[in-house]
Amino acid sequence: MAANTPNFAGQCALLLSSCRHGFGELAKLQAVEGAMLGRVRVAGFAVSLDGFGTGPEQSLQDPLGKRGKELHSWFFGTKTFKAMFGESGGSEGVDETFAHRSMDGFGAFILGRNMFGPVRGKWPDDNWKGWWGDNPPYHAPTFVLTHHAREPIAMEGGTTFHFVTDGIHAALERARDAAGTGNVKIGGGVSTVRQYLQAGLVDELHFALSPVLLGRGEAMFEGLDLPALGYRVMGSTATDLATHVVLGRKESE
Amino acid sequence: MAANTPNFAGQCALLLSSCRHGFGELAKLQAVEGAMLGRVRVAGFAVSLDGFGTGPEQSLQDPLGKRGKELHSWFFGTKTFKAMFGESGGSEGVDETFAHRSMDGFGAFILGRNMFGPVRGKWPDDNWKGWWGDNPPYHAPTFVLTHHAREPIAMEGGTTFHFVTDGIHAALERARDAAGTGNVKIGGGVSTVRQYLQAGLVDELHFALSPVLLGRGEAMFEGLDLPALGYRVMGSTATDLATHVVLGRKESE
Repeated sequence: MAANTPNFAGQCALLLSSCRHGFGELAKLQAVEGAMLGRVRVAGFAVSLDGFGTGPEQSLQDPLGKRGKELHSWFFGTKTFKAMFGESGGSEGVDETFAHRSMDGFGAFILGRNMFGPVRGKWPDDNWKGWWGDNPPYHAPTFVLTHHAREPIAMEGGTTFHFVTDGIHAALERARDAAGTGNVKIGGGVSTVRQYLQAGLVDELHFALSPVLLGRGEAMFEGLDLPALGYRVMGSTATDLATHVVLGRKESE
Repeated sequence: MAANTPNFAGQCALLLSSCRHGFGELAKLQAVEGAMLGRVRVAGFAVSLDGFGTGPEQSLQDPLGKRGKELHSWFFGTKTFKAMFGESGGSEGVDETFAHRSMDGFGAFILGRNMFGPVRGKWPDDNWKGWWGDNPPYHAPTFVLTHHAREPIAMEGGTTFHFVTDGIHAALERARDAAGTGNVKIGGGVSTVRQYLQAGLVDELHFALSPVLLGRGEAMFEGLDLPALGYRVMGSTATDLATHVVLGRKESE
């Protein structure tokens, strides 16, 4: 009635095969990436087992919503994450490779307004300048989708926040112009990524599926038929902390 | 602009650490399982990246719905799956350990009516006896939830299908009686598992998250707040083909 004694050799062989599989996928992705510039990408986008990309009740205390941080465990230990905050060290494995890919090679970023901050409705003043302090991790023109106009804000380190009030297509056009030969990252949150997906404007997505249950929050996939929108799984590889799945569009093959 | 050259040694070290992590989790699960009999379990339940537990449009040709088979790639190669159909061979790694746990130690099973077959409404006759041929893989009393009464069917190999018309609680009571000191498996499909979860009647769940996009089908987690229902992640481990996540109830600690 008890389960089999684990077959240690068999399990290790399987994980080493997974290891090789991971290398193959990464090499393939890097080849794709090297060959194609000017792409629109979603990357490093964490999702819970139950499909939430953000926890509920975002606030100044909980920028990612309640328990939202737990989605990003795979990212926090990486060299890329530490470097974003001026720290050295950090992991260098598969999680790091995806973390690096999620921040590197972008000439412009697009963010939803709630990803930019907890302020809703009209801007009461110009005080709020994002969650990230004086030197945000974007280092490039960053377009914030909003219904409420505001002057651009030039931050330290090359990030300038531009506020776009005429919709997702206009924001992408401006971001493409700003990015030149670089890629454009749709940074989030859930609602922004869903809008760009539904409009068929995303070339590649990397989801980091975290083995976490949130129960509530912003549902990433609900009512979204990604195969019908032209997306398919290009590859996947797993670590202790996340299963990394890359989606591409069928016509990109 | 290109991503880092993969750090091969680092990636292997990480995957080997995942390997060790997997063993620890499996050993813990087996200890829990050995100590606690008479549990109600969902096991080997595959879910797509976008949260579907079954494809759409189930039919005689597609018992798991369209493209539903793709969810179960992790299972088809295992020793347990092959043995279910009288074949030898098959994998013996982590996927096999979870496959074995998903069919072993059960004294009774509960299935939703659509998992039993494609017939809807009143039974037109007694011809339909499940998808599995004369010798179904349950080898124990198996209770089928339905609104339409029918006489029990004794199959070869110890499976008897009983048709329960008075609801999920009654079915579980009968299954517990039949199972004795064995566990009861809620075999599926999605709707049946959701009903037992919402009623707080499941002790442990194993989901095999497959890196597949279905787009349509039966959504497993939509509108289900599992943490609020008392569930938490007990452990997870990944292979090439699936990320295995085990959920338990907080009060089982």
